[in-house]
Amino acid sequence: MTIQSREIRLKARPTGELTPDLFELTERAVAPPDDGEVRVRNLFMSVDPYMRGRMNDVESYTPPFALGEVLQGAAIGRVLESRAPGLAAGDLVTSNLGWREAFTAPPATLARVAASKVPPSYHLGVLGMPGLTAYVGVLDIAAMRAGETLFVSGAAGAVGSIAGQIARVTGCRVIGSAGSDDKVRWLVDDLGFDAAFNYRDVDLEAALSEHAPDGLDGYFDNVGYEHLQAAINHMNDFGRIAACGSIAGYNAATPGPGPNNLAFVVRKRLMIRGFLVGDHGDWRAPFAADMGRWLAQGSVRTRETVLEGIERAPEAFIGLFDGANIGKMLVRLAHED
Amino acid sequence: MTIQSREIRLKARPTGELTPDLFELTERAVAPPDDGEVRVRNLFMSVDPYMRGRMNDVESYTPPFALGEVLQGAAIGRVLESRAPGLAAGDLVTSNLGWREAFTAPPATLARVAASKVPPSYHLGVLGMPGLTAYVGVLDIAAMRAGETLFVSGAAGAVGSIAGQIARVTGCRVIGSAGSDDKVRWLVDDLGFDAAFNYRDVDLEAALSEHAPDGLDGYFDNVGYEHLQAAINHMNDFGRIAACGSIAGYNAATPGPGPNNLAFVVRKRLMIRGFLVGDHGDWRAPFAADMGRWLAQGSVRTRETVLEGIERAPEAFIGLFDGANIGKMLVRLAHED
Repeated sequence: MTIQSREIRLKARPTGELTPDLFELTERAVAPPDDGEVRVRNLFMSVDPYMRGRMNDVESYTPPFALGEVLQGAAIGRVLESRAPGLAAGDLVTSNLGWREAFTAPPATLARVAASKVPPSYHLGVLGMPGLTAYVGVLDIAAMRAGETLFVSGAAGAVGSIAGQIARVTGCRVIGSAGSDDKVRWLVDDLGFDAAFNYRDVDLEAALSEHAPDGLDGYFDNVGYEHLQAAINHMNDFGRIAACGSIAGYNAATPGPGPNNLAFVVRKRLMIRGFLVGDHGDWRAPFAADMGRWLAQGSVRTRETVLEGIERAPEAFIGLFDGANIGKMLVRLAHED
Repeated sequence: MTIQSREIRLKARPTGELTPDLFELTERAVAPPDDGEVRVRNLFMSVDPYMRGRMNDVESYTPPFALGEVLQGAAIGRVLESRAPGLAAGDLVTSNLGWREAFTAPPATLARVAASKVPPSYHLGVLGMPGLTAYVGVLDIAAMRAGETLFVSGAAGAVGSIAGQIARVTGCRVIGSAGSDDKVRWLVDDLGFDAAFNYRDVDLEAALSEHAPDGLDGYFDNVGYEHLQAAINHMNDFGRIAACGSIAGYNAATPGPGPNNLAFVVRKRLMIRGFLVGDHGDWRAPFAADMGRWLAQGSVRTRETVLEGIERAPEAFIGLFDGANIGKMLVRLAHED
């Protein structure tokens, strides 16, 4: 028996700010699985800032989305039927086949998630790619050690909120920037950041002087541009900058100027290092062990902003660049109860 | 018996381009050494781009030069008389007491240079701080390996010319940029660079596309700004940038914008790392051994631009920022024969 799957296709490429008319909602019949396939109904799909780069027609570390094709991205779903070894109906699987309600695929493209009490959506956030990104960035790239000070921009986002908490658990002092007073309160009151500020309301330089009077040893950069420039001004000698993203520029039609203070990179012996989580598969096992423990202990907390229904996926994605999310932005594609 | 020493003092701080009237030539009597001191006559003094930072009234890794005081910098000289253990008349010593013809000082501030056939001036260049800077930058910071491609800016300077040759000896393909056709010919014809170009005459992006069609694995940055931006555009994944200096901005009254393409730092997983040679004392012994051998073999060559007489030290220093030097810029303070 076929089932219906609604899907989101890329209709046109953006030239700057994202608009809903770039996306098209279509519907398709998904046949039962062939031999060697499973059929999956997605429960949640993830929207992540890196997807913005795939909307441009530029070869990068991931190929561009094809015009007129269904978009892709992380999702978690339930196996409906299996005609493949290793997966059974009822299994939870993550895939890169988001932006669609259901699909058939061979098991090699899926990862089975062991049964646990953890909500399925966590595997798209704190226990998934964003969590691992935070873990690698804080502990490997920025190499934060107890007693040091870390500044996190985009600190109320999926990656930033976990990065700050990992540093805190490691014994660091943690300062976050975010784009609303609600987010700032969440960071300090619920997540235990030592300080946070609303970058829309303050002068970045003054805020860092106030909250990091002894300077920064590490900076977890999700934002770039003015944030990066201010962080460089406040870095201590031998500081490390984990370059994770630069969301402030993703929607720009032409790139803005970079920081005017790179001379400090020499004088202070700074390291700026870009990283992509996909290169750090060897960190996956220690991450899973540590993060599982931290979540169980309550020493790392997570929060989700969930929009209901695939028709809201474009809104969820566009919202990432307006700061519409607190914590992980997700779209719920099906309810289970 | 006292001897006369002419010296250069800093009369005023520059606000942008350097001019001769910022410097003042004065004369002073240097008395015989006290107990525990030696008296030294300098043979050569070095002018180096980093000194430009010390002319500003800004605390950095070295304190600012004091107004009205004699400037400082690397020099090599001959001990005239010694009243201190460990040094004898006739010994060659390096010091940080350049910009003066003679001085007295305790031995702790001096480094004795073992007698050899090497011209004394080499200890201010290929065998001194510039050579070690090149060695650390290429082999430690940029971690160049045989078969990789390195781009060196300021390639005809004291550091750049050695950096390129160290990479070549290591088995790398080396591309240099310099500011005149003479320099470009020297790099390719005499030093064995695989390619070089005159950045004043070409489009940087086009030159790198032409000379590094397979991209750059490393970039030794002496220049910053447009050079850094172009290099980032041409870096391969996991490329390393050794940030040694940014001479293009040293004379700017207000800092120019940085590279507009730092998004590539993430996408290509680039590392930009600033360094100062003073932090890498543990590289001194292997450097001395390697460079001594390379010079003896003729696999590393050096060239000097020498101005005669301390009265020309300001001209030599100002000339660094106009590209007046090929290889190491030096001022000869005394002749020996």
